[in-house]
Amino acid sequence: MLGTNESAAMMDLKQLRINGERLMADFTALAQIGATPDGGVSRPALSLEDLEARAWFADHIEEAGFLFTDDDAGNLSGIWPCGDGTARTLLIGSHLDTVPNGGRYDGSIGVLAGLEVMRSLREAEVRLPFNLEVMNFTDEEGSWISLLGSRSLAGTLPPTLLADVQGAQRAALARAGINTSRIPLAKRDPKTLIGYLELHIEQGAALERLEVPIGIVMGIVGRTTHQITFHGERGHSGTTDFYYRKDALQGAALFVTRAHMMAQSRFDGTIVNCGKLEVLPGTFNVIPEQARMLVECRHVDEATLLEVEVSLLELALDCAEIYGLRCETKRVEHMDAAEMHPDIRGLLERVCARMGLRHTSLVSYAGHDAQPLSHCTPSGMIFVPSVGGVSHNANEFSRWSDVVSGVNLLLQSVVELANHPLATDKD
Amino acid sequence: MLGTNESAAMMDLKQLRINGERLMADFTALAQIGATPDGGVSRPALSLEDLEARAWFADHIEEAGFLFTDDDAGNLSGIWPCGDGTARTLLIGSHLDTVPNGGRYDGSIGVLAGLEVMRSLREAEVRLPFNLEVMNFTDEEGSWISLLGSRSLAGTLPPTLLADVQGAQRAALARAGINTSRIPLAKRDPKTLIGYLELHIEQGAALERLEVPIGIVMGIVGRTTHQITFHGERGHSGTTDFYYRKDALQGAALFVTRAHMMAQSRFDGTIVNCGKLEVLPGTFNVIPEQARMLVECRHVDEATLLEVEVSLLELALDCAEIYGLRCETKRVEHMDAAEMHPDIRGLLERVCARMGLRHTSLVSYAGHDAQPLSHCTPSGMIFVPSVGGVSHNANEFSRWSDVVSGVNLLLQSVVELANHPLATDKD
Repeated sequence: MLGTNESAAMMDLKQLRINGERLMADFTALAQIGATPDGGVSRPALSLEDLEARAWFADHIEEAGFLFTDDDAGNLSGIWPCGDGTARTLLIGSHLDTVPNGGRYDGSIGVLAGLEVMRSLREAEVRLPFNLEVMNFTDEEGSWISLLGSRSLAGTLPPTLLADVQGAQRAALARAGINTSRIPLAKRDPKTLIGYLELHIEQGAALERLEVPIGIVMGIVGRTTHQITFHGERGHSGTTDFYYRKDALQGAALFVTRAHMMAQSRFDGTIVNCGKLEVLPGTFNVIPEQARMLVECRHVDEATLLEVEVSLLELALDCAEIYGLRCETKRVEHMDAAEMHPDIRGLLERVCARMGLRHTSLVSYAGHDAQPLSHCTPSGMIFVPSVGGVSHNANEFSRWSDVVSGVNLLLQSVVELANHPLATDKD
Repeated sequence: MLGTNESAAMMDLKQLRINGERLMADFTALAQIGATPDGGVSRPALSLEDLEARAWFADHIEEAGFLFTDDDAGNLSGIWPCGDGTARTLLIGSHLDTVPNGGRYDGSIGVLAGLEVMRSLREAEVRLPFNLEVMNFTDEEGSWISLLGSRSLAGTLPPTLLADVQGAQRAALARAGINTSRIPLAKRDPKTLIGYLELHIEQGAALERLEVPIGIVMGIVGRTTHQITFHGERGHSGTTDFYYRKDALQGAALFVTRAHMMAQSRFDGTIVNCGKLEVLPGTFNVIPEQARMLVECRHVDEATLLEVEVSLLELALDCAEIYGLRCETKRVEHMDAAEMHPDIRGLLERVCARMGLRHTSLVSYAGHDAQPLSHCTPSGMIFVPSVGGVSHNANEFSRWSDVVSGVNLLLQSVVELANHPLATDKD
C-alpha cells in the first residue's frame, strides 16, 4: 500500500484520466499495419504484418521511456519498474494479432490501453507500490497455436502441442525468434505477480442491448472441440439395396440437429457449433461413405462443460447406431473454463461506482488471454460494447467514447489496486 | 417375317447358342484396357483409355467382317445389313466407358454381347428380315455429359447442355472427333428403327437375393438432381447472440433427415440421395454461413418423380424458415423415367420360358442408354445378377454362366423378333 503521506495525492489521482487523443493516434497508426481495403485489419500471428506491429509496439515502448523485453514465447513487454527490487508485478495485456480479415479493435485496444495507462500514471508522477507491465501475447487468435503466449506464461500449454510443431508452424515461430524447445521457459512464477487486467471489446451485443458502457467479466467459457467421423458404406445411390444403405451423412445430419436441441433443452448457457462438415466421396449419385465434422461446445462452468462433452459423444454413437454406421471421435482441443477473480471483479465494480460508470456482469463466450492467466494470478476483464456485436470482421466497431471510458476504468483500477491491495495480498 | 420356306431352319435356330469362349476372350482383352491394379477398370469417357477401347472395338467389328461406322455424337456401330435396302434396323448396345476406378462388367458386357450375337447369327447363316447394328454409346457414365451418345441418337439431349460446352469438355469431345455443333445430327429417324435391346449387369442385389439368373426390366427410374443452398449468417460461434444465429448447416441437416423420412413414408419406391454437402467457411469456431448440397431423387413413374421433386423443394423452404435462412434451389439435371416396351418385355418373357430360364421383372434404379432410346423406339433390357450388388467398383463381378445365359437370351430374342415381329410392326 502507498504510504500515508501520499494519501492526499492519491485523492487527486481519482480524478486522473488518460489522454484520449494520444490513444487515438496510436490506434490509428496501428490500424495501418495490415490494413485491408474494406477498413479492417489482417494481421495473423507471426505474419509479416504481425511482425511489423510487434516492432511498432517495441519502438513505442522505448519511445515512451519504458523498459522493453520479450520472453521465450515471443510475448512482448513494456515494463515500468517501481524501483523496489522485491516488488511484484501487475500485468495488463491483450494481443496485437488478428484473425485473417479481422477488425481494428479486437486485441489491439487492450494492448494500447495498457501502454496509455502506464504513460498517464507516470506523467502524473504516481509512485506505484508494484511494477507495471503491459504485454502483447503471442498468437491469441490461434493462427498457429491458440493462446500460445498467455498459456506459456501461465504454464498451461500442453507439451504435446509443442511436440507436434513442424514445418510452416516451426518456420513461423522462428520468424519471431521463438525456439520451440525454449517456449516452456516463458512460464512466470505466480509469486512474482499481483494480478492481470485486460480490456477487450465484447464481440457480442449484450452491452449494446442493455445500453451499458462497461461489462465486468465473471468468467470465460471453457471450450472443447471434437472431430467426429461417421463411417458408412459407399454405394451407387440408385442401385444399392434400400435396406442395406449405410449413409454416413444421415448420421451426421441427425447429430447436428439433435446436438443443438440438446444444448438448448438440457444445458442452459451452452453453445454448440458444428462449423465444419466434409462428406466423402461427395458425388451426387454416390451414397456418402464418410462424414467428418468438427464439433465445438462452450460453457462457463468446467463441470457442466464436461457433462455436455460426454452427452455429445453419446449422442454421436446413438446417431451412428440408428443408421448402422461406425463412429470415431477425437478430442482435438480443450481450453479450461476460467473464473475471473472475485476480488478483481469487486474492485472493478467499486471503481465503476465511484466513476459513475453504468456496468453489468457477463460471461465471455470467446476465449481471451485472461483465460490461462486466471490459472496463475488473480485476473479480471473489462468489456466495452461492440456495435451490433460484430467481430472478426472489417465492420468491427466500438464507439470511441466507450473505449475511453473502459481505458479510464483500467487506469483507475490500477490506482485502486495501489491504494487497496487485493484481500489475497493483505496477509 | 421370314418366308415359310425358312421355318424349318428357324426351328433349329431355337437351339442356337453363342460362343462363350470367344466372348470370354473379348471380355478378357477389353478388361486390359485401362485395367487398375486392384482388378477393376478405369476408362472414363474420351480418356486415352476409352479412346483405346473404341479403337479396339472398331478393329473387332472390321475383323469380324461387319461394317463399321460412327455418328456425330461419337457413337460407334458395327452393322450387319440384311441386304434389303428398305429394311429397318434392330439396335443392340451399351457402353465401353466406365466410371473412374469402375468394374469390368458395367457396360462392356452389353456391347460385347451385341457383337457376339451378331457373329453367332451370321455363322449360323441366319437371314434376318432387318439390319442388325451393335452400338457403343458415348459417355454413358457422364464423365462429360451423361448419356451423351444415346440421348443424341434419341434426340432428347437438351440443346442448353451443348451450348455450355467449353474448355476441357470441348477438348475431350474433340479428341474423339466430336464437333459440338454437329452432335444434334446424330438423331436417328425412329421410322428406320425396329427396336433396341440392351444387356447389362443389375448393379443391385435383387436377382441374387431371389436366386434368379435373369431380370426383365419394366422401367428405368427418372432422376432429378437439385442444387440446394441454405444461406445463413457467418458469426463467431461463441459470441454471436444465441437468438440471432442463422446457422446454414442446421437447415441443411434437418433437410437431409426429413428428406429421407419423407421419401420412405410418402413415396413408395423413391430413392433420395444427398451425396454432396459443402459448408462455408468451414471453421470450427465460425457459424456456417452457407451449406450447399446436391440432392437427387429417383422414381420409375415420371408423375410421382415430379411430385417428389416438388415436395423436396417445399421441404427445403420449410427447413430454411425454421432457422431463419434463405434457400436457393436449382434443378441441375433431369432424366425422364422410361418404360420398357410391353411388347419387348412380353417377347423376353416368352423366350425365357422357352429356354427354361427363370426370370423376374424389376425396375432399374440406375440410368442406362435404354432410357433415352425408349423415347424413340421400342426398347427392352435384360439384367444379369451382380454378386453382392457391387458396382462402380473394382469388385464388380457377375458369374460367367449368368452372363452367357443373358447373352443367349439376347440371341434368341433376336431370333424371336425375326420370326414374330412386334405387334406395333404388324400394321
